[in-house]
Amino acid sequence: MTVRAIVLAAGKGTRMKCDLPKVLHTIAGRPIVGWVVKAILDAGITDITVVIPPDSDAVAAALPDGVRSVVQHERGGTGHATRIALEAIGDVAKDTVLVIAGDTPLFTSATVAALVAAHRGPATVLTTRVPDPTGYGRIRRSADGVVVAIVEEKDADDTTRAIDEVAMSTYAFDGASLAEALPKLGRANAKGEEYLTDVVGMLAPVAGFDVADHRETLGVNSHDQLAEAEALMRARINLAWMQAGVWMQDPATTYLDATVQLESGVRLLPGVHLEGSTSVGGGAVVGPQTLVVDSTIGAGSRVGYSVVRGAEIGEHVEVGPFASIRPGTVLRRGSKAGTFVEIKASDVGEGSKVPHLSYVGDATIGEESNLGAGTITCNYDGRQKHRTVIGDRVFIGSDTMLVAPVEVGDDAVTGAGSVITRDVSPGALAVERSQQKEIPGYAARRGRLDESEGE
Amino acid sequence: MTVRAIVLAAGKGTRMKCDLPKVLHTIAGRPIVGWVVKAILDAGITDITVVIPPDSDAVAAALPDGVRSVVQHERGGTGHATRIALEAIGDVAKDTVLVIAGDTPLFTSATVAALVAAHRGPATVLTTRVPDPTGYGRIRRSADGVVVAIVEEKDADDTTRAIDEVAMSTYAFDGASLAEALPKLGRANAKGEEYLTDVVGMLAPVAGFDVADHRETLGVNSHDQLAEAEALMRARINLAWMQAGVWMQDPATTYLDATVQLESGVRLLPGVHLEGSTSVGGGAVVGPQTLVVDSTIGAGSRVGYSVVRGAEIGEHVEVGPFASIRPGTVLRRGSKAGTFVEIKASDVGEGSKVPHLSYVGDATIGEESNLGAGTITCNYDGRQKHRTVIGDRVFIGSDTMLVAPVEVGDDAVTGAGSVITRDVSPGALAVERSQQKEIPGYAARRGRLDESEGE
Amino acid sequence: MTVRAIVLAAGKGTRMKCDLPKVLHTIAGRPIVGWVVKAILDAGITDITVVIPPDSDAVAAALPDGVRSVVQHERGGTGHATRIALEAIGDVAKDTVLVIAGDTPLFTSATVAALVAAHRGPATVLTTRVPDPTGYGRIRRSADGVVVAIVEEKDADDTTRAIDEVAMSTYAFDGASLAEALPKLGRANAKGEEYLTDVVGMLAPVAGFDVADHRETLGVNSHDQLAEAEALMRARINLAWMQAGVWMQDPATTYLDATVQLESGVRLLPGVHLEGSTSVGGGAVVGPQTLVVDSTIGAGSRVGYSVVRGAEIGEHVEVGPFASIRPGTVLRRGSKAGTFVEIKASDVGEGSKVPHLSYVGDATIGEESNLGAGTITCNYDGRQKHRTVIGDRVFIGSDTMLVAPVEVGDDAVTGAGSVITRDVSPGALAVERSQQKEIPGYAARRGRLDESEGE
Repeated sequence: MTVRAIVLAAGKGTRMKCDLPKVLHTIAGRPIVGWVVKAILDAGITDITVVIPPDSDAVAAALPDGVRSVVQHERGGTGHATRIALEAIGDVAKDTVLVIAGDTPLFTSATVAALVAAHRGPATVLTTRVPDPTGYGRIRRSADGVVVAIVEEKDADDTTRAIDEVAMSTYAFDGASLAEALPKLGRANAKGEEYLTDVVGMLAPVAGFDVADHRETLGVNSHDQLAEAEALMRARINLAWMQAGVWMQDPATTYLDATVQLESGVRLLPGVHLEGSTSVGGGAVVGPQTLVVDSTIGAGSRVGYSVVRGAEIGEHVEVGPFASIRPGTVLRRGSKAGTFVEIKASDVGEGSKVPHLSYVGDATIGEESNLGAGTITCNYDGRQKHRTVIGDRVFIGSDTMLVAPVEVGDDAVTGAGSVITRDVSPGALAVERSQQKEIPGYAARRGRLDESEGE
Repeated sequence: MTVRAIVLAAGKGTRMKCDLPKVLHTIAGRPIVGWVVKAILDAGITDITVVIPPDSDAVAAALPDGVRSVVQHERGGTGHATRIALEAIGDVAKDTVLVIAGDTPLFTSATVAALVAAHRGPATVLTTRVPDPTGYGRIRRSADGVVVAIVEEKDADDTTRAIDEVAMSTYAFDGASLAEALPKLGRANAKGEEYLTDVVGMLAPVAGFDVADHRETLGVNSHDQLAEAEALMRARINLAWMQAGVWMQDPATTYLDATVQLESGVRLLPGVHLEGSTSVGGGAVVGPQTLVVDSTIGAGSRVGYSVVRGAEIGEHVEVGPFASIRPGTVLRRGSKAGTFVEIKASDVGEGSKVPHLSYVGDATIGEESNLGAGTITCNYDGRQKHRTVIGDRVFIGSDTMLVAPVEVGDDAVTGAGSVITRDVSPGALAVERSQQKEIPGYAARRGRLDESEGE
Repeated sequence: MTVRAIVLAAGKGTRMKCDLPKVLHTIAGRPIVGWVVKAILDAGITDITVVIPPDSDAVAAALPDGVRSVVQHERGGTGHATRIALEAIGDVAKDTVLVIAGDTPLFTSATVAALVAAHRGPATVLTTRVPDPTGYGRIRRSADGVVVAIVEEKDADDTTRAIDEVAMSTYAFDGASLAEALPKLGRANAKGEEYLTDVVGMLAPVAGFDVADHRETLGVNSHDQLAEAEALMRARINLAWMQAGVWMQDPATTYLDATVQLESGVRLLPGVHLEGSTSVGGGAVVGPQTLVVDSTIGAGSRVGYSVVRGAEIGEHVEVGPFASIRPGTVLRRGSKAGTFVEIKASDVGEGSKVPHLSYVGDATIGEESNLGAGTITCNYDGRQKHRTVIGDRVFIGSDTMLVAPVEVGDDAVTGAGSVITRDVSPGALAVERSQQKEIPGYAARRGRLDESEGE
């Protein structure tokens, strides 16, 4: 038996009062529809067809390779969507066909697998029990437990309204039964659409599969539901990492993409965002208030009150507080990017330090060098970028401007306040400075003051 | 029929173990008493009298224009407070008089309007059902539902104690009945005060109006209740914005004043505070960890890890990470205030960039200019501030000091590390610098080192 | 009667998938076992023995003076642990012996005292009622309320499984009864360990003491339970401070060590961490997003978006946004450390200001002085640190390098962009600068540009 899955991501409610298609809003860094597709894939089902609305190239582009997408050009309803999906799939007479809502990001692969395993007969309806069933289709079961009807709110009497088991727009169908029933659907209803629930009506009595945790079936139709789903997914992801030995002071404000990798012994302080392909080694401490995107942080490093993007941070490196590490940066073992330090597309060697108030861009720094406060690599001449090369054990004085392209040799020293425009030989001191002059009694004549300072 | 409202903001509990009067503590940027008055005004009731404690000029000053304030000079109780309010109002014989607690900031205009609409007979008592009624006056109703008594905790038998419907210190009165009953109140009780609840006792049986959500009636008497009210108000405000199409990754840590305006498509990351008259345009991304006060942020701009006060930020502007934008600043379309950048009272033209480690104060910058890292406008001479004027397409070299008043013409360039004290002509290069000198073999004699750098 | 306490911090589950011993993980800055010991001490019990696992010198070191520690060298079970503790204590025949789990940080001194007071007969078992008793030993009581058995999950029938009163691994024993029963424990069970619960079985029927709030008995066995305990402790600590008059906008994201002291009227914004011996004076405003460790903040000061460690901040001082104040710093009354400012081991006099983009290390600054933007004290020559001394009413121009050791006299001024290597006399102007030169028409020949700026 082959299992084929159809994900319904078109139809009504494809926007949430903003421009981005609903199912492309991300939760923990992954689009809503991506979560649904991943749950199906993780359940071992590889034949997946996603029905998308027109003008949704972005949705199709967000799907993993091998997932089929079909555009529903008209507002034809869930029945119509399923029908055009079947047309794309071909013959399903001997298959099981899952139809799953595309806006339920919390749906798990375990539930997908359990639904398939529980499926019997012409159809199995996914149901769950909710605290407040108002608005949902209620599940009416017979004495022996089979689902005899899904009753819409408007058709429900008081007894039926009191039922808290509801239908979740997700089903397993016998392929032949589904293919036979779909063409019989009419559009003689208020919206003029073909409803998949009517197929269930035709095939009833059917099996019902009750999902224990109703939150798993949360559909996202508005930004407040999206935020609720994000919070539930955050709790789920963080619980898994904590159970794997990661310390979090406050998981409620720890934001991890689903794609992040952590070793046990990692410590995450509040307000940490780890995104994309980021990984963190054991014993590293990240946060508070730190954003790390597509970067590696080595074991034993400390990164706090900082923003790190596209960087490779070695072991026992110190970053921050208040550092911005930009793409293409490598901070090697034991190095430091301290306070009010920005580093971009540079390689900082082992044990080298950039402790304060510096901008380092397009530079290569050797080992055990030290850049004084206020060091700036002047890498841009208004037309193109140039590289700065600093050797080992170099001592750059405070407020040194390194006008690239320029090279400072091993063991060299620069004087504070110097503008270095020519290469410095190994072991040399380079200095660019005038004589200090003193005008006595200046304070008394301060009316003529022409020096100033920022305030 | 005229409806007049009396807000009781005096009496016991006017402080919460700190100096600020209780009702002046703010929730989402608005004082507690301001929330109550606004709910009344929004219900269409314009005749409002607030009873305030002595030495509370600040409370009176916080009230909107047209709202009457009356000082209760003695601890006379709620009955006395209502009596002196009536003296200030005048004849209410043909009116409905609302008496509302001044410390219930979550009270909504819808409930005020519903109370007025439901009001019948001599008085209507606002009630609600609470999970734990301990300490509240319980509502005893007759078989036909009218309120026959409010029973205080100490007078309640077990049956009455089990009642979870409680009185909320808020009432609608027939003006004539109230005016007639108030003078009959005595002070023969433990505290020697006149209690408004005794008026209800005189007029009983009366109507009861049950508020469905008891949290709406939360009275603030301590800082923990204030924090609870703040959290509930935050949830209410954020829900409304999410339903209007605003994305929030974590509404629990998104702090919006009630006065803020957002367009749909705005994206707010965790730790964002938007305060005062701030407005944000569609597609703008704010946060994480950003404070914006009394500022506008244009559509498509990105502001993260920054503090912005009293500024006007145009469309597609980039701010931060780690920027401080201070009052009087205008950042025009496509401009940038980057990392470790502070800008104050300055106008940054379209497409101009201040990417790193700069202080710009009292400056006017034209279009498409670029300020190098470490640029500082020296705007203060110890006595007064002076302006810096920079033209279009100017290229300021790194670590340039612009000693104001000074003007740099269009297309001019300054050399890195220069102190610019005189105006620079359009198209010219200005440089202030000595010759770079090199002392070979310096590292070997480093014992004589007199240069240094901060660590 | 003497009461002696034994705390069980060895046995199974001494690690939580990371290297740090479980009971040394901190909650609000105090190790888990430290919370348990403190609750016992605060209940007036001073004879405390903690049973620790081998290779746990760190645990022993974390205990307060006077607390005995005993190493359990083998995995002998709770009975064995209690037995070796008794051997270390000596004769307890006339004493009450408490045995308390070492991993229950929320346990209060009030509960310890109440358990002692309620203790009767040979033993009293601490119990509580939990929402989901699965996995716990159920308490079976007789009709008259005494505990007749603790039934393990695996031995429980359906009736017993439905019991929600469970045993919490904490007991009060009659010393003689305990000493007599312990040697009778066998190891003929699956794990080959001596179980303390079997002692209760020998002594039954015993008394039961029911803790009203089951969360108080939360045992920490994994990082998610640790985070849960941290959140509960945070709520408990913050509630106490709010009731004492401290304002918190969002107590859920306000992180206070148990050792911190606050005056009423303190205002804490979201994302504040106060740690160690920190104290904050009345009217001070701290946050948002601020870390303060082992520091004092005076009344009326404002510290926001900053990191402060080991510093003494006087009254009415302004720090931040974006400042890093490091150990050994004193900021005196009315002084300011502004935006992108780092200060280390320095004394900033009354009314003196370091407003922007500065590094001040190993400096003494007098009163009413002003350091321009970009000021750096060059305190390190690559071998050792030197001090900078600045007098009263000094005006340091922007981008001044102060090459230490150096002294600037009262009322002196330095020119913007100067490198000051020699002392400056009181009242003098010191300047180090070349002539500004201008090369006209430079923009037209910009192909030869060799100046640059960072981007």
